[in-house]
Amino acid sequence: KSYCWLPLQNLKDWVAVKSDSIQPAFRKEVTRMMELAADRLRALGASVMLVNQLHQLPDGWTLPVVLAELGKDPHKPTVCFYGHVDVQPAKKEDGWKTDPYTLTEIDGNLYGRGATDNKGPVLAWINAVETFRALKLDMPVNFKFIIEGMEEAGSLGLDKVVKEKQHFFSDVDYIVISDNLWLSKMKPALTYGTRGNACFFVEVECGKKDLHSGTFGGIIHEPMTDLVALLDSLVNMSGHILIPGIYDDVATLTEEEKKLYESIEFDLEEHKTNAGVKKFLYDTKEEILLHLWHYPCVSIHGIEGAFYEPGIKTVIPAKVIGKFSIRQVPHMALATVEKQVTQYLEEVFSKRNSPNKLKVSMPMGAMPWVADINSPMYVAARTAIITVFGEEPDMIRDGSTIPIANMFQNETRKSVMMLPIGAADDGEHSQNEKISRYNYIQGTKLFAAFFLEISKLHGQLQIASNTTSVPTEEP
Amino acid sequence: KSYCWLPLQNLKDWVAVKSDSIQPAFRKEVTRMMELAADRLRALGASVMLVNQLHQLPDGWTLPVVLAELGKDPHKPTVCFYGHVDVQPAKKEDGWKTDPYTLTEIDGNLYGRGATDNKGPVLAWINAVETFRALKLDMPVNFKFIIEGMEEAGSLGLDKVVKEKQHFFSDVDYIVISDNLWLSKMKPALTYGTRGNACFFVEVECGKKDLHSGTFGGIIHEPMTDLVALLDSLVNMSGHILIPGIYDDVATLTEEEKKLYESIEFDLEEHKTNAGVKKFLYDTKEEILLHLWHYPCVSIHGIEGAFYEPGIKTVIPAKVIGKFSIRQVPHMALATVEKQVTQYLEEVFSKRNSPNKLKVSMPMGAMPWVADINSPMYVAARTAIITVFGEEPDMIRDGSTIPIANMFQNETRKSVMMLPIGAADDGEHSQNEKISRYNYIQGTKLFAAFFLEISKLHGQLQIASNTTSVPTEEP
Repeated sequence: KSYCWLPLQNLKDWVAVKSDSIQPAFRKEVTRMMELAADRLRALGASVMLVNQLHQLPDGWTLPVVLAELGKDPHKPTVCFYGHVDVQPAKKEDGWKTDPYTLTEIDGNLYGRGATDNKGPVLAWINAVETFRALKLDMPVNFKFIIEGMEEAGSLGLDKVVKEKQHFFSDVDYIVISDNLWLSKMKPALTYGTRGNACFFVEVECGKKDLHSGTFGGIIHEPMTDLVALLDSLVNMSGHILIPGIYDDVATLTEEEKKLYESIEFDLEEHKTNAGVKKFLYDTKEEILLHLWHYPCVSIHGIEGAFYEPGIKTVIPAKVIGKFSIRQVPHMALATVEKQVTQYLEEVFSKRNSPNKLKVSMPMGAMPWVADINSPMYVAARTAIITVFGEEPDMIRDGSTIPIANMFQNETRKSVMMLPIGAADDGEHSQNEKISRYNYIQGTKLFAAFFLEISKLHGQLQIASNTTSVPTEEP
Repeated sequence: KSYCWLPLQNLKDWVAVKSDSIQPAFRKEVTRMMELAADRLRALGASVMLVNQLHQLPDGWTLPVVLAELGKDPHKPTVCFYGHVDVQPAKKEDGWKTDPYTLTEIDGNLYGRGATDNKGPVLAWINAVETFRALKLDMPVNFKFIIEGMEEAGSLGLDKVVKEKQHFFSDVDYIVISDNLWLSKMKPALTYGTRGNACFFVEVECGKKDLHSGTFGGIIHEPMTDLVALLDSLVNMSGHILIPGIYDDVATLTEEEKKLYESIEFDLEEHKTNAGVKKFLYDTKEEILLHLWHYPCVSIHGIEGAFYEPGIKTVIPAKVIGKFSIRQVPHMALATVEKQVTQYLEEVFSKRNSPNKLKVSMPMGAMPWVADINSPMYVAARTAIITVFGEEPDMIRDGSTIPIANMFQNETRKSVMMLPIGAADDGEHSQNEKISRYNYIQGTKLFAAFFLEISKLHGQLQIASNTTSVPTEEP
């Protein structure tokens, strides 16, 4: 198979694959997407390895992780790119203007599930490499790729793959991830930290079968009533989390960090427009950024097991599972958060005197992550951004969790950078997800420029390091 | 088309039709079911009329109501039977042991959606009539039928049909409904009252699109947080409704009514087993019956617009609709309940200082209903029950709403009776709905015996009424 440099067609082809890794019904599509990604890397000239049996779900389903490499020149730095080709669920009925799996261009925006999270950025990186190949230019760096298909499902087992394939990572110098967004619609950004995410299930069960609200309403302890009280006990109307001790381990806010927030260009009104809300919980830019990056928060996502369709159903659901998550920040430990949440909810529940069964669990937990913004990779990326976009990037964190940033740093001990190319209004995980044609193409250029900058900087560092590290044994 | 007396096959054929009137996708099946019911009545020799255009949904979809009559002997009483052939939603994945649309007999029980609510009882009545025909016996009464296909969707427009077809009801003496259950698994019952049902939607909206909990969690007033607080404000852990004034119009509990509860045979443990719960909110039979029949209650059914699937989705839903209902009792007026609920929720919401949009509505409301247990129809049914089952029935109310009982009484001014044939553990509206083969067949016999009893009693009443009402003008 041969591919030509047709970035839009490539993205259209990838978006068309319903690689939803959350709903089990779509698993064949995720597998097919991984095969397409592997084919694309082979066409680039990379040697591709499918690591099977490692990336495993609790029900036994396995999906390969794609590892690939292109170039082995010992004089060049090796840059490893991580990306994922699975997507969040999407249905036209959820409120999409266009079919979520048909990439559609409207007014310069490319709409489609996965357009910005994360198929677009993965393809932009591949396109950048392809450009050097197509123009028959010398590759500035050696490339490695790690592409997965279960990021939206929590990247289960990916850490095991990275641990077991240490040899693959041994000659990697830099790891780049492009799986988040700028802070504004137009100004590029470089990301040095993310929040974590501790997901919780609260299950309340009264029996094995749903009941009729006429026949049993008024005489039983309804699981929904219990659950609603439990969920209502988590956070107050000001966004303050009510779980005792939850703020104890939050990093003290230093003057230095405060200053960092002040210098960031961040349009509150624009962000409000992106959110589509009338009012935020806080009024100033600094407070908003602090509550997105520095402080934890609770979001309630929904309830499994209750009636969710349009219309009316006079049912008392027998087993309901509330789903919420806590976005933790440095230095909150997952095990501590899990214990605090479980103890608190069990205490709230025990006060209700309900005969129902309560089960609190944390099916997924991801740590927060912070990087050193003065490391070579960040310097190179900053220069590349100035070259392509003509301005300094915002140095930002991300309120979202990208647990692999943390995982890569821990498992490989290499330096990790997050280099987003999507804009603030891309709507990842939402209806009408998009990437603009501008960001997709400029993102490709940014990656190409980054290859040249990191190659240059790495060469200088090598010389400097050789100069200083060669021992002078002469007297 | 000819039908033979094959009660089980008939029920199997009807259960196989997915006449779910709640989900728009199944509308063709509801229409088909109505045609099957009309065919069945024609085969009985009845003249059938399909009343179109009246039974109308807000979106313009219309479904005929079937009116039928069999016999016009002026010396016989005319009994009108009401039933519905639409069903609640059912999916195998909801926890059914068997396919919900394939009637399956296990240990004497006939499992299938609609088996007891209400296809089984409708067919039992038709079977009873068919028996007289098949045995070439004189029909004891004239029959009328009103069969609808939108009961589970709130019988929208049925009152209009009844109002506009007054001529059809003018010669009706008695109206019988068999759309509820006995109080126990084995002892028959006669029902003289039902609770009402005021269904509410509480909608909270922050904007047009769902948001990512990483990107916006911590800085916005989340609609789910608001909704959970609103739902949590409705009822406390003891089942006491917290809406101010809601108990004001509840009928005073008389000594006479109290006595009625004491004499009823009601096995608390059995009812607990049917419910599948460990413990009720109250300990005594009287308290339980009072809270099912005499006092109102709140049930929370679910939430539309939030994440409801298995797994995790890190979403902040933009528009969520909480669904709950209040089962009202005599003498609570719907308009008053609607006002109390709306005012209270608006007050709770305003205290939260949330910029989100709140909308409280009552899309469906049904009044409670109570009948005179000493009227001829109740006496005839009691005798028929003793004949077929060998014991006195429990004189009960039903916690469920059967709004047409109330509507028929109001619109036609005829006396209305509810004569259930299903057992307490039939699981209407629930997974694994069933009717036992015993109840289905004995129910058929009960209806036949009732025809004979009401014919006899009606004849006696006519003689008595002629004797007393003929004016004696002779001096």
